[in-house]
Formats: sequence, C-alpha cells, structure tokens
Amino acid sequence: MTKLAIYPGTFDPLTNGHLDIIRRSSAMFQKVIIAVASSEIKNPLYSLKEREEMIKITLDEYRKELPNVECLTFNNLLATFAEELDAKVIIRGLRVVSDFEYELQMGYANASLNNSLETIYFMPTLQNAFISSSIVRSIITHNGRFNHLVPKGIHEYILRYKK
Amino acid sequence: MTKLAIYPGTFDPLTNGHLDIIRRSSAMFQKVIIAVASSEIKNPLYSLKEREEMIKITLDEYRKELPNVECLTFNNLLATFAEELDAKVIIRGLRVVSDFEYELQMGYANASLNNSLETIYFMPTLQNAFISSSIVRSIITHNGRFNHLVPKGIHEYILRYKK
Amino acid sequence: MTKLAIYPGTFDPLTNGHLDIIRRSSAMFQKVIIAVASSEIKNPLYSLKEREEMIKITLDEYRKELPNVECLTFNNLLATFAEELDAKVIIRGLRVVSDFEYELQMGYANASLNNSLETIYFMPTLQNAFISSSIVRSIITHNGRFNHLVPKGIHEYILRYKK
Amino acid sequence: MTKLAIYPGTFDPLTNGHLDIIRRSSAMFQKVIIAVASSEIKNPLYSLKEREEMIKITLDEYRKELPNVECLTFNNLLATFAEELDAKVIIRGLRVVSDFEYELQMGYANASLNNSLETIYFMPTLQNAFISSSIVRSIITHNGRFNHLVPKGIHEYILRYKK
Amino acid sequence: MTKLAIYPGTFDPLTNGHLDIIRRSSAMFQKVIIAVASSEIKNPLYSLKEREEMIKITLDEYRKELPNVECLTFNNLLATFAEELDAKVIIRGLRVVSDFEYELQMGYANASLNNSLETIYFMPTLQNAFISSSIVRSIITHNGRFNHLVPKGIHEYILRYKK
Amino acid sequence: MTKLAIYPGTFDPLTNGHLDIIRRSSAMFQKVIIAVASSEIKNPLYSLKEREEMIKITLDEYRKELPNVECLTFNNLLATFAEELDAKVIIRGLRVVSDFEYELQMGYANASLNNSLETIYFMPTLQNAFISSSIVRSIITHNGRFNHLVPKGIHEYILRYKK
Repeated sequence: MTKLAIYPGTFDPLTNGHLDIIRRSSAMFQKVIIAVASSEIKNPLYSLKEREEMIKITLDEYRKELPNVECLTFNNLLATFAEELDAKVIIRGLRVVSDFEYELQMGYANASLNNSLETIYFMPTLQNAFISSSIVRSIITHNGRFNHLVPKGIHEYILRYKK
Repeated sequence: MTKLAIYPGTFDPLTNGHLDIIRRSSAMFQKVIIAVASSEIKNPLYSLKEREEMIKITLDEYRKELPNVECLTFNNLLATFAEELDAKVIIRGLRVVSDFEYELQMGYANASLNNSLETIYFMPTLQNAFISSSIVRSIITHNGRFNHLVPKGIHEYILRYKK
Repeated sequence: MTKLAIYPGTFDPLTNGHLDIIRRSSAMFQKVIIAVASSEIKNPLYSLKEREEMIKITLDEYRKELPNVECLTFNNLLATFAEELDAKVIIRGLRVVSDFEYELQMGYANASLNNSLETIYFMPTLQNAFISSSIVRSIITHNGRFNHLVPKGIHEYILRYKK
Repeated sequence: MTKLAIYPGTFDPLTNGHLDIIRRSSAMFQKVIIAVASSEIKNPLYSLKEREEMIKITLDEYRKELPNVECLTFNNLLATFAEELDAKVIIRGLRVVSDFEYELQMGYANASLNNSLETIYFMPTLQNAFISSSIVRSIITHNGRFNHLVPKGIHEYILRYKK
Repeated sequence: MTKLAIYPGTFDPLTNGHLDIIRRSSAMFQKVIIAVASSEIKNPLYSLKEREEMIKITLDEYRKELPNVECLTFNNLLATFAEELDAKVIIRGLRVVSDFEYELQMGYANASLNNSLETIYFMPTLQNAFISSSIVRSIITHNGRFNHLVPKGIHEYILRYKK
Repeated sequence: MTKLAIYPGTFDPLTNGHLDIIRRSSAMFQKVIIAVASSEIKNPLYSLKEREEMIKITLDEYRKELPNVECLTFNNLLATFAEELDAKVIIRGLRVVSDFEYELQMGYANASLNNSLETIYFMPTLQNAFISSSIVRSIITHNGRFNHLVPKGIHEYILRYKK
C-alpha cells in the first residue's frame, strides 16, 4: 500500500478548496506533503516564503485534524522532486474542464519522466467548487471580503501583510 | 420586475459581439449600464479612458436604438459596484466553453459576496460567435482589416489613434 | 421591456434545480410559463400528464412566492409554441459544458425558425449544481432517498405513484 | 488509512483501460472490489452474469499481480452498496471531458446520499486513453479485430460466445 | 499526394452542414466517397436506402460543382471499408466539443485497426455551425420548417416521403 | 486539387508533436510551408531566428522523408501571409478542447479576412498527444530530461544554447 503522497501547487494563496483536498488526502494516506512550487514564471502575488508561511500557519491551526501533513517548497520538476522524496503518488484537485485537460497533459508528461509516479485526482466538495486562488487574489486586490474563502490564519496574515 | 441591469467587461475594445448583447439587453431591461472595468492587471491595449470614449461614441451612434443604455467605469469588485448602483442583474455573454467555466466560477464568487445579485447569460448571434476583443486586438496590431468586427465609430477612433 | 418568458423542458420530473430557475425567472419577468414538452421520443419515466400534475402541485405549494408562474404542455416545436403565445424570451438553465453546447445549437436553430425569439440562460445556484432529472430518476428506480432533490409535493407524489 | 476501495462500472465488457485502473488501484489500497452494476436500463450487450464471468476470468489470469482484487455485482444505488460493504472510497477512471462532467455530478449526488464516501479519479495511461467499452462493442458487432483492446481471456470468451 | 478520401457518416439525413464539408473536400482531393454507414444500432429515422437516395439526388443537383464525389453504403467497420477501397484519408466534420472528443477516440481506434489511415477534420462554416441531423429530425417530426437546413432535393424528398 | 499548404505556429520550440503533423501533411500535399510566427506578444523563450534555425536543422535531419517541406517566418496576419503565398490551405493540430475552441475562433476570423482560405485539422498520434511547447519549455527551464519530446537536432541545439 502506498504511504506517501505529494500535493503540489503554487498556493498563491492556499484556499479553503485546497484545505478540503488536504483533509481528504490526509485521511487516505499515511503521510501527505504539501509541495509549494516556486512558480516564478507565473509572477505570483505572494513570495515563495510567504506562501509557505501561510500554509504552515494553517497546518498549526488544524494540527489535530492533520497530524500527518507537512509543507515543503521545491524549485525543480515535480517528477524529480517526487523521486527525491521517494513518493509514488501525486494528488491533484480538479475543478473545471480546463483543469482536467491541463492535468491530463501534465500527468502524461510526468509519467514520461518518472514512470513509477501515479497521479490521483479529487473533485472539490460542492461548496468549494468555485474557489480558486486567482479569484481570491482578484478579491484581495480589489479590497473585497474573502474571509469565507481561505482559512482563518491566512485571512489574518493577508490583512496584516497589506498594511 | 427587474429594472436595472449591468453589463460589465473590459471592452478592449468593444466589438460587434458586445454591441449585439447590448442591443438585446436594452430590449429586455428598463435601463442597462455598460460597466467598463479598469482591468489594469490585464495590461489592456487601450486605457480605461479610451475604452470609455469608444463606447460613448458607439452609444451616440446608436442612441435611437439604445435610449436606455449608459456607460460607467469602475475599479472595485463587480459585486460592490452593483451594490452601489442597487443593481440586481448582471448580464454576461457566453461564446465558448472556457467562457462558460470562467463565468460559472465568477458567478458563484459574486453570489458569495452579494447574494441578491443575479447573473444571466446571452449567447452571441451566429455571425458574431467568433468575435472577441483579443482577436480584434491581434488584427489591429498586425495591421489587418477589422471594420467588419467593431462599430463604425470605434473603427474610425482606432485608425485615428494609430497615427 | 419584455413581459412574458417561457421556461421549457421535459421536467421528468421537475427538480429543486428547476425550481430555483423558476424562482429567479419569476422575479425578473411579469409572467413565466413553464412549458412541458411531451418529449415522447425520449421515452420519459413519467407521462406528460403526470409531469404536468407534479408541476401544478409545486406551483400550488409555492403560490405566494410564485404568483406569476403558470404551467402549460406543448407537443410542437418550441419556436412555434413561443410564437403562439407571443412570447419573446426563452429561459434555460446551464449546468455543465455539454448543456452549454446543446443549448447553443438549439438556440441557433430556434432563432433560425423565429428570429424575434431571445434565449437567456441562468446558472444553477451552487447547492443545485449537480441535480439533474436523470440523476433523480436513477435514484428513484434504485429505491434511494431523493427528498433533498425535489420539492416536497413531488416527493410525495412519486412515493404514492410507486405503490 | 483507507483500506477498502470499490471500482464500480458496467464493464460491458471490461477493457484493457479498466484493467489498467484496477492494477493501479490494487497497488494503492489493501483491497479493491470491482463492482459490476446490472445497468439494465442501458440495455447492455452482455448479461450481468456474462460480464461478471469475464471479469473473474481476468482476475484468475492476473491473480499473482492482483491478489487483493475481487468482483461483486450490485443492483442498488452505489452509495447504498458502498455503505453495505463499509467502503469509504470509490475509484473512477476519467478519459474525456464528458466523463469528467458526468463523474462530477455523480460524485456530488453520491456524497449527498452518503457523506462519508470519497471518490478518487485516475486518468488512463496514454496507450489506453482511447479505449472504451462502447468502442469495443462497436468493433465486436462489426466483426473487427479487438484482441489489442481487452484482456486475453475476455477476447477468447467473446469469440466463443459469438458461436 | 493523397488522391482518394472517404467522408463517412450516418447522414440521417444529409444536411447543408454535410454538403459544405463535401464541397470543401471535393476541392482538396481527386476523388471523394460519401460513405453511408447503415448504423442500425442508432435506429435511424430514414432507412439506409432512403439516406443513400437522398444523397444521390443531391449529388445530381450539384453534379457540376462536385464532379468527383460518389456515394457508397457500408455495413462493416470504417477501418475495414477504407482498406477495401484502398483509401488513406478519412474526412470528418467537427462542430462542438463533444464531437471533438468522440472523433479523437474513434480516430485512435481506427488507427489501431488500420495504421495507414489518416483522419483530417474540417470545421463547419459559421452559418452551418448549428445544423445537425438530430436537430433536422427534431424539426421534421414536429412539422417545423427545415428548407433552410438541407439541400433542395432532400427537402422535397422528405416532404413527399411524409405523405 | 490543392497543392500548397501552410502549417503556421510559434514553434517555441518545435516538438515531436509538430513533427508528426508535418510528416502527415507532407504526405497529403505537394508542398508544405512551416510558417513561424514572430509572436512577440507571447514573449517566446527562443527568438524568431532561433526557432527558425531549429526547424531548419530538423528539416535537414529528415530531408529524405520530407522533401517537400520548407520553413518561412512571418510577422503579419496569417490570412495576409497566406494570400501573399497564394496558399489556400492552413494546417493545424488539435490536442485538447481548449485548442479546439481557439482554433474554431481563429478559423472563422481568418475566413472573415480571406474567404478562399481553408483550414484543416489533424489530431496528434497517441504517443504525442500530451506534448506541447509549453510543457517542453517548462521541463527545459527546470533542467529536466526532454530528449523524448523533441527531434534529436533540436535537443542538441537547446543543450548547446544553454551553455
């Protein structure tokens, strides 16, 4: 049985949708690594360090519920990073058709680089189905309300950060 | 019965596809506001002021047909802007599947911020189904012919602007 | 301003998703006709008469909230039926990409038959986004629980009907 | 950690695409149940008994590789069947966009009936991406070659069956 | 250079959308065969013989424009039929996303059966983009107007047939 | 019969997926022009000159197999460029649904500018279905292995270029 699973992403920032996938992965695998990609090419709103800090704050907030989840950052290919950790399973969320197609391509590309790597996909629960980091960023930059879209600790972190 | 509807967008520039939706909205609601988003993050080809000017030229051109349509600009969240105007209906056009998914997400995000807000969607008429602002911009920057894709006044404005 | 809107469908049976669209249409138009297509070619689970009865039970249940909604059946083309009622607006719900494409085609076909006909689309609210008549039928035929998917009166009607 | 996973389907007939998902599930969970739905409403080409027999022949063929996989049939709702087996995980394959949307709806419907149920999705490996039971059935009924699309035992079973 | 191309389909009935693809194929290849599949499993509205007759009437109508187009029927696999004719190119129309996915699967299945077979795809011209045989059948069975959707000869044939 | 076909793209860089389409086009038309768009607006990883050089290296590598293929660059509209070459056929590859929709729009836009222009589409062979220039670029910038995704000469060119 598979023990270690990686949940990679840019997490710019982590949303309640991501948290939902983390919870469900945590129940299914012995250990789950949240792997934050530096993704400099996407020109993220928050730095790699900030994105990592927000996730660690959330993992502290939910430590009892998520005892087997950790956060790491990476700057190389996911297929290589998984190999370094000897992880065999990648976890991804699927929200919309365009996610699906992108994931399909990336899954095949990763398998072409590391054929012991398995990718499994979760669908979001219904109440999280519309939440994406890009929508959260858009609300943040327009000074809208976003406390219902991200974990409490991240909401506070972002409000502090804006000052 | 609903009286005021908002038709938001970047309109970079307004196309015959947009004009078609405006015409049909104008027949369905007592008053329609074309709401031009500043959308600085998208790095638009035309400034907010230029995009507004082009729309106003078009509204003058079609004033008889569109007596109940006005143009405003906004720089905050659509949900907030609608609240300020006490508008209950957002109008959006749907052209392709990726529009559909993006709209579905934005609609749910807006409803999570302002739950009295209703979004309705129009499909383009067949002859406008392929026209998008990004295709028009691409033709403009490559010096192609685009007089069949935008209202007459906008075509003239853009040609003048290029000098 | 448009006064009369038609909401056509097979309604085999009407679900909470349909009811949601009816509520929102009722707030937007002076009068809304739920138009039940006989759809014999689809071999529906419930007869046209039963589908109409279930809708009328629901309209009685929600009469105060939906004073301007009526139910009619039709067996000809939607474009023709709309012409007979002198209705200019068709209301449709969009749930998934395949709905979107089918609707696009039907919208263009209807416009080619009756060019004064306008179709507008609503997206379901989030909690109704997964409900379709076919999922409800599948649960009914496998004796599953479906009281959370249809109006109360329809739930009772179907349970009685199964005896 | 989750121990028991169900892989439901009509399997009319089981293909190499299904076998691929079974192999990968078998490596990820302690026990995997292939759950053959009677699906009478779909009017399957092979009877429930035949579909089950073909799967059992395949499981015998791959017994060493798949020691933890079993086959059962069911005729009620998947959510109910999973509850009876005390299974918490449903496994599904995703091949195309329309699969994705159907699965999304079914996943939400199942969760609304049994909220302890988790569904995870696998994408097919590239060489199996085009294989579906309906394509296999089409080739069989037109007397084409299909030995590259199904396990060896099923190929022989079907050829015998045709006599 | 490729000389012979096959345009397969059920053509139940042939529409202006099909005719458009035939015209464009006729300009690109030395010879084009319209291959009418019996498709009994789809329970077509018109018999194989009737569908073939309608196409032959249309080819007579457009003989000058389409001197290199012929019509044949087939009842085996397309990959086999193409092999019998020594054809290397299959022509298909793409209208919507679901067509695209189905065609992708069928293309791969055909290539797995006959790897010298090439499939190329045309998009419909804009004014034909919404026309499908199923929409035409739906209008015919509801006694609607369809003279703008099929060639003149087919329109007359169907009206005669209905008596 | 059509003689000259254009295969346009950014080719940043050319992949095995592109090469596959080129091979198949070369067998179908008398002459094929690979038309490299400058695409400065996309901020390509390789300059127009580098992208052209890589293609020319590949055409030399496959000269015997592709005697009728040439490479040109262009910086105006595709519809205009095709007119200058008196080409009547545009070749495009389709990989995913979002390609399909974009291509549909571009095809209609091109036809609106040059109505003698025909666009035909190829699907990738299965083993190339996941390869895109953007995935190759992502692997290159993360120092991953990409020799299985591009022609041999391009692989060497890129490795030299990185020093």
